[in-house]
Amino acid sequence: MLTYHLDHNAKLPLYEQLYRAIRHDIMTGQLAGGEQLPAKRPLSAHLRVSQITVETAYGQLAAEGYIRAVPRSGYFVQQVDTLPHPLPTMPPSAPVSPAPSPPFAFDFKTNVVDTDCFPFSIWARLSRAVLTDYDRSLLLEAASQGVLALREQIRRYLYAFRGISVEPDQIIVGAGSEYLVTLLIQLLGRKRTYAIETPGYPKLGQIFEANDAATVPIPLDADGLCFESLCASNASVAYLTPSHHFPLGVVTSAARRMALLRWANEAEDRYLIEDDYDSEFRFVSRPIPALKELDHNDRVIYHNTFAKSLAPSLRIGYIALPRSLLPIYQARFGSYASTVPVFEQYTLARFLETGSFERHVNRIRNLYKARLDTLLNALAQSSLAGRYHVSGTEAGLHLLLHMENGMNEQQLIASAAAKGVRVYGLSSYYIGTSAACPPATVLLGYAGIPSEQLTAAVDALAQAWG
Amino acid sequence: MLTYHLDHNAKLPLYEQLYRAIRHDIMTGQLAGGEQLPAKRPLSAHLRVSQITVETAYGQLAAEGYIRAVPRSGYFVQQVDTLPHPLPTMPPSAPVSPAPSPPFAFDFKTNVVDTDCFPFSIWARLSRAVLTDYDRSLLLEAASQGVLALREQIRRYLYAFRGISVEPDQIIVGAGSEYLVTLLIQLLGRKRTYAIETPGYPKLGQIFEANDAATVPIPLDADGLCFESLCASNASVAYLTPSHHFPLGVVTSAARRMALLRWANEAEDRYLIEDDYDSEFRFVSRPIPALKELDHNDRVIYHNTFAKSLAPSLRIGYIALPRSLLPIYQARFGSYASTVPVFEQYTLARFLETGSFERHVNRIRNLYKARLDTLLNALAQSSLAGRYHVSGTEAGLHLLLHMENGMNEQQLIASAAAKGVRVYGLSSYYIGTSAACPPATVLLGYAGIPSEQLTAAVDALAQAWG
Repeated sequence: MLTYHLDHNAKLPLYEQLYRAIRHDIMTGQLAGGEQLPAKRPLSAHLRVSQITVETAYGQLAAEGYIRAVPRSGYFVQQVDTLPHPLPTMPPSAPVSPAPSPPFAFDFKTNVVDTDCFPFSIWARLSRAVLTDYDRSLLLEAASQGVLALREQIRRYLYAFRGISVEPDQIIVGAGSEYLVTLLIQLLGRKRTYAIETPGYPKLGQIFEANDAATVPIPLDADGLCFESLCASNASVAYLTPSHHFPLGVVTSAARRMALLRWANEAEDRYLIEDDYDSEFRFVSRPIPALKELDHNDRVIYHNTFAKSLAPSLRIGYIALPRSLLPIYQARFGSYASTVPVFEQYTLARFLETGSFERHVNRIRNLYKARLDTLLNALAQSSLAGRYHVSGTEAGLHLLLHMENGMNEQQLIASAAAKGVRVYGLSSYYIGTSAACPPATVLLGYAGIPSEQLTAAVDALAQAWG
Repeated sequence: MLTYHLDHNAKLPLYEQLYRAIRHDIMTGQLAGGEQLPAKRPLSAHLRVSQITVETAYGQLAAEGYIRAVPRSGYFVQQVDTLPHPLPTMPPSAPVSPAPSPPFAFDFKTNVVDTDCFPFSIWARLSRAVLTDYDRSLLLEAASQGVLALREQIRRYLYAFRGISVEPDQIIVGAGSEYLVTLLIQLLGRKRTYAIETPGYPKLGQIFEANDAATVPIPLDADGLCFESLCASNASVAYLTPSHHFPLGVVTSAARRMALLRWANEAEDRYLIEDDYDSEFRFVSRPIPALKELDHNDRVIYHNTFAKSLAPSLRIGYIALPRSLLPIYQARFGSYASTVPVFEQYTLARFLETGSFERHVNRIRNLYKARLDTLLNALAQSSLAGRYHVSGTEAGLHLLLHMENGMNEQQLIASAAAKGVRVYGLSSYYIGTSAACPPATVLLGYAGIPSEQLTAAVDALAQAWG
């Protein structure tokens, strides 16, 4: 008879103890395949537990396939392959964490926003109102493209501020850029080549690579994406930042816009993906009209997110598809669930509807403009004056600083780091060769550094590069 | 001199009217490339507007590249290609909406849950508390894998309820299954073949296809995924539902589990993806232990979501990676943003931490069990008695009804539909051939139909099939 020590005082229930004990014996081969287990009644008497305890343990073992009940005969151990011996213990893997950064006093990162000025109390109030007003309907699954109320607000925003006419059924709300670009690759396919800008977002290339989608880097000239290079490539889709190129700051000229749209029209199945990432932050004159505004033949896929205009933790972006792509989207992805929680979608819809978004964007545009002015003034009044020039200051949250102090990019970065300031070399944004990179140029992202610290940061740079 | 009618009473600012008028003339060729524009002062006098108005309009046109400022000479029209004539107007595309469903009185869908019993007031209370307690820190970007507080709660849950030992750094929180499976394909690559179950989730095949990842369908036998078929295939990853196969309900036996783990150990770079989609809803005996629990050699990727246990609108799922895959994940996706808003992550963490999740799952498990019992009783007491048998009732939110009334699957579906009841044919879940499909079998998902309606639904089925 099976004999196990079952502890009546243990926290683990008796049936669980018995189940584990028998399972252990089966796994280790002490109970062999085909062997019959004792009947429930004698085993319960033997172990001084109730018959229910044995029954529950046997039931569980049977459900998991360790034993098999044969009607009118009893329970039999199944043939269970024993596990191979675990591999020799591996050395503990190195802790997976980013390398510790040197302690920078100032970091001119480009991918931050200042969340201090986000009107969180308004957002929290709208959130509470959404919880109350929508109540249980927040539990219902959203349409694959996102809740209609939000898509309608995005439509209004695009029309009012970007001159773009799309209908809500063309808009797809999704959990941020990486998700939406991946979706576009699935929609447009991997049997083609995508033109991407060089220099450009390093992450964009990563997304295409992770999706095994072929890319061809296309350089920029003063008018935008180099048109001859695009035409000479085998690309049929171009991903671009026409309103304000990242990181060079080039605004695609009207002539180049027309040329790009003509290129897209010249063959079936060509598209432009317009990443309008910082169109909200134009400091000089009106916002540049979107390429999509001029897109009379429906060749432009518009893409933007709220990560920069609101906060990175709200993973809400959107794309607006040409009408011709909608049936394909519906057929292939219409059954996908929306990736953004319904709650956030309704809250953001209200934030847009009540004008809070517009007021917030106006406020931070002024804030970032003030930081830009502070930075430019501090540079002009520093000992660096006369030995640099800047570019890309019309828009966005960073500028390019071209140094003429005899240092190369590498030396600029290293000497700034030695003074506690982190700056970013332009060459690292190039794909493949950076031969076309202007020499001795660094990116300074100023959105994350308050004005009062910018002067100190420039002082440190002046010491490093003076 | 340019002459435009500018309306001083219009809502559109004067500079904007002027900008649009000049842009229009450039686009239509009325102002040719190279042509010089009038100087600001005479034009402003001529049009009776301020000089600032002209300056602003010119500035905008220059920023967009329609005109060019030449120092000490003035403004010149740029050479702008005119757009090709828009293509002949396409017939309006058919409205993109799913085909209207016939009006079913009862729908035995499998992919619904009953959100009526979700403790929304508790969730709303926790949401409000999170807004207050975390305040602005909700705006900070989450770690790529999700906020630590939630990953820690998932770790505790997996340990306590599924016997799985993983650390929070192995867990990746993401916006639902489609996103997480896409991420896994990116992580494991497209240079291999993935074994998927047939029958199985139709959506799973779609995700692999949309990602151009090769799949091989593997049939099921009474013990789970057919081992010979798996071994004979060229698959190096198998995606399976071992605790409760969808849709057959097969529980993978202990022997088969060992065999599968051995298979995964036999070659470098083989993995099992365990989709534990409804392990919370096991009605008979304890939950079946996860394959991951037995995974001593770290070959199992565990995958689950909260869509069924909470609500589909909360797009929160997670995977637990083997430690060996973490460095690859970190290197390739560590810079991706988390796809779930921080707010939902903290709220769910509290929902788990306070025991609300466990209480909720226990409650709905009982509710679904009661519905299952009602359904089984109604069938047994109907005129169908003796002409059917059921399977797959140990767990999950659906059962298989095998009819023996002479009708085939097609006839069962059609005659039920004629009586206002929607049932789902098992054959449609097979990939490729459905030759192995049991005849005349339909899926009845009972989670979305209240008990009092289940009896009426069975009455209608009895009329249809009697």
